[in-house]
Amino acid sequence: MFNGLTRRGLLMGGVAIGGSALAGGRARAEAPPGAIEYDVQPDPTKEQGRLILDDGGYGSRSQFENEVRWRYPTASLDSSWSMTPLASGRGMITPSGLHFERHHAGIPTIDPQTHELILHGMVDQPLRFTMDDLKRLPSVSKIHFIECSGNGLTEWAKPTLKTVQGTHGLTSTSEWTGVRLSTVLEMAGVQDKAAWILAEGSDAAVMTRSVPIDKAMDDAILAYAQNGEALRPEQGYPLRLLLPGYEGNTHIKWLRRLEVSDKPFMTREETSKYTDLMPDGTARQFSLEMEAKSVITFPSGAMKLPRPGFYEVTGIAWSGRGKITKVEVSTDGGATWREAALDGPVLSICHTRFRLPWTWAGEEAVLQSRAIDETGYVQPTMEQLVAVRGLKSVYHLNAIQSWHVAPDGEVTNVHA
Amino acid sequence: MFNGLTRRGLLMGGVAIGGSALAGGRARAEAPPGAIEYDVQPDPTKEQGRLILDDGGYGSRSQFENEVRWRYPTASLDSSWSMTPLASGRGMITPSGLHFERHHAGIPTIDPQTHELILHGMVDQPLRFTMDDLKRLPSVSKIHFIECSGNGLTEWAKPTLKTVQGTHGLTSTSEWTGVRLSTVLEMAGVQDKAAWILAEGSDAAVMTRSVPIDKAMDDAILAYAQNGEALRPEQGYPLRLLLPGYEGNTHIKWLRRLEVSDKPFMTREETSKYTDLMPDGTARQFSLEMEAKSVITFPSGAMKLPRPGFYEVTGIAWSGRGKITKVEVSTDGGATWREAALDGPVLSICHTRFRLPWTWAGEEAVLQSRAIDETGYVQPTMEQLVAVRGLKSVYHLNAIQSWHVAPDGEVTNVHA
Repeated sequence: MFNGLTRRGLLMGGVAIGGSALAGGRARAEAPPGAIEYDVQPDPTKEQGRLILDDGGYGSRSQFENEVRWRYPTASLDSSWSMTPLASGRGMITPSGLHFERHHAGIPTIDPQTHELILHGMVDQPLRFTMDDLKRLPSVSKIHFIECSGNGLTEWAKPTLKTVQGTHGLTSTSEWTGVRLSTVLEMAGVQDKAAWILAEGSDAAVMTRSVPIDKAMDDAILAYAQNGEALRPEQGYPLRLLLPGYEGNTHIKWLRRLEVSDKPFMTREETSKYTDLMPDGTARQFSLEMEAKSVITFPSGAMKLPRPGFYEVTGIAWSGRGKITKVEVSTDGGATWREAALDGPVLSICHTRFRLPWTWAGEEAVLQSRAIDETGYVQPTMEQLVAVRGLKSVYHLNAIQSWHVAPDGEVTNVHA
Repeated sequence: MFNGLTRRGLLMGGVAIGGSALAGGRARAEAPPGAIEYDVQPDPTKEQGRLILDDGGYGSRSQFENEVRWRYPTASLDSSWSMTPLASGRGMITPSGLHFERHHAGIPTIDPQTHELILHGMVDQPLRFTMDDLKRLPSVSKIHFIECSGNGLTEWAKPTLKTVQGTHGLTSTSEWTGVRLSTVLEMAGVQDKAAWILAEGSDAAVMTRSVPIDKAMDDAILAYAQNGEALRPEQGYPLRLLLPGYEGNTHIKWLRRLEVSDKPFMTREETSKYTDLMPDGTARQFSLEMEAKSVITFPSGAMKLPRPGFYEVTGIAWSGRGKITKVEVSTDGGATWREAALDGPVLSICHTRFRLPWTWAGEEAVLQSRAIDETGYVQPTMEQLVAVRGLKSVYHLNAIQSWHVAPDGEVTNVHA
């Protein structure tokens, strides 16, 4: 299978396999994570290329590509999150290897042959499913974003993180496939007084959230696949809950248990955490739907425009409530706005790529984007958002992002 | 970055890193290509999971997933193709690591910093682009399938390969991003008599094809990204031509040169190869558009249905001429047909997932699917196709596929 590797150095996942491991192999500069290092041909038209099955039949990215998820420096490595490099993203799909993730007790490694999902509580017939059972049921595929409601939590009081990966990298889009939650709920028979359903993960945090039964019966999916293959481990392999448009924390990963009830379960993640402290001292609870948001990914923080001239301003917009209908872009800090073009297809509850041609004359500029969704909701300015929410919140910052462009081309994160 | 790995065995890409390479690491069973082997926790709720950056920030698939591209056993390893495992596919997107590929002289390894695209011939101003130049131009993202016109070449005279990976695995779907070819052609100024454009790759085959200028000006894309990240090496990194709906061979990979002309260039790949020998001894040339086609991926060849009962029949349909409007499924070898449900969004020139509930009573059955596209074209039976094309063709087999289900549940490839 690895015919030909003996004459090449090989590196993968950032871990070097030196000359001693492969007969005739040479130690080389370290390949980025996810890449295999191959010899570069001085003139590839004059020399046979490498053999295709050098990669074992599952291809890897180019050794010249090195973007990775960035782990936010939480105090503990065991409960942390890592963010998608949005600046290098293209289109709407996030490569599965770069999908953001949030975990509360590390990433469990689960054998799908032994994994089960239990459904009980206020149902006529409690049920237990193996993964094979679930895969035999009717399935559905949907392209949706998931956004952690903590996306941007560093940015409330002042611009803090330098890049769009830091300010907005807790949102990603995949095509998800699985069984509608309504299918298994109908099999079990939901009782009349049912109003909520608990979802529980089989990680060491035993992550739990309560979900309104109406959402569960509407568009929720028990997802076992992502972008055409099995879920990635850090996305909940072998099974996660997908609640289109709801805050990411509710999309319980490594899903093992569902319990139907007449009231919410008041778990830690919906009482102590994932609530929004308002200016009057009360807390907003079950703020589940992600409101419309957008961000310019090019140009964005920590980039430098090499010279005046033509640039295509591009970014992504999304709403937990449906389709994006319009994105407007300002290059003068919100004084004037132009409508951006949207890449089709514009899908409901999905990243939508927008683009606007911009000729930069070298002047100081402040770039902003503003999303409007099909409910008519308009993404607020930071000032508008703070007027309602105050500065005690952690979650649900969806204000307009501003990028300052200096005359020398340097782009920085600002509040404007 | 690899904190925590010292207590774990690590394997990636099928190449073992033994205990001698990592202090305290243990040799383990080999992980499948594209996976990293981690310890399985007996009860993941009782033990902290692994650290997220154990993967270096670019995630890999689960160690329990082992589907790989299958290389067709061509005489030479240097010119070959490898096929997507469609049976395990979900939704419309093909994971980039499993996208089919065809190469004629191995896979070149090209440094994008030195790669250039030249545009010359019947243009007012010949142009030369670096990759940075191309990435500054207005861009577009589209989800399209690419199908090799050799897909199914073993199946003309009799059912030959056992699985859907072998019979249909030379088609895959990705979201592609790049610059419209029309953008650079307009920059160069195409002269009035221009009718064709040559595309040339920088692999050792110096792969070349002629493309009608109307197609080039319509929807052709100079693609540098795939599924949200850079093109994969075997897909033409750093640049390929994308000609939506045209046979895969024309989507020149490792693209380095475009030459505008008033006539086709009559390259090897459009004279000796990629032509269709008809029953009367003439050859059909420039049969570029891929006609409507579909295949059932579950159940499919070499599977065994465990027992009678409910199954969701599913598969993919696609057309190089636009959208799929209908897919019909037969379980009795074409005697009767039922309309399958199509997963939305149904996109133009894109795999469309279809699904049909089926309760199998244990009888002998022959499963077939039939695609109809928005031009009204109906996918032909094998008999209808052979009546027109004869049996001397290699390329463009788009006939209805039949899977025989035996009473014991065994599924086999048949001509019915």
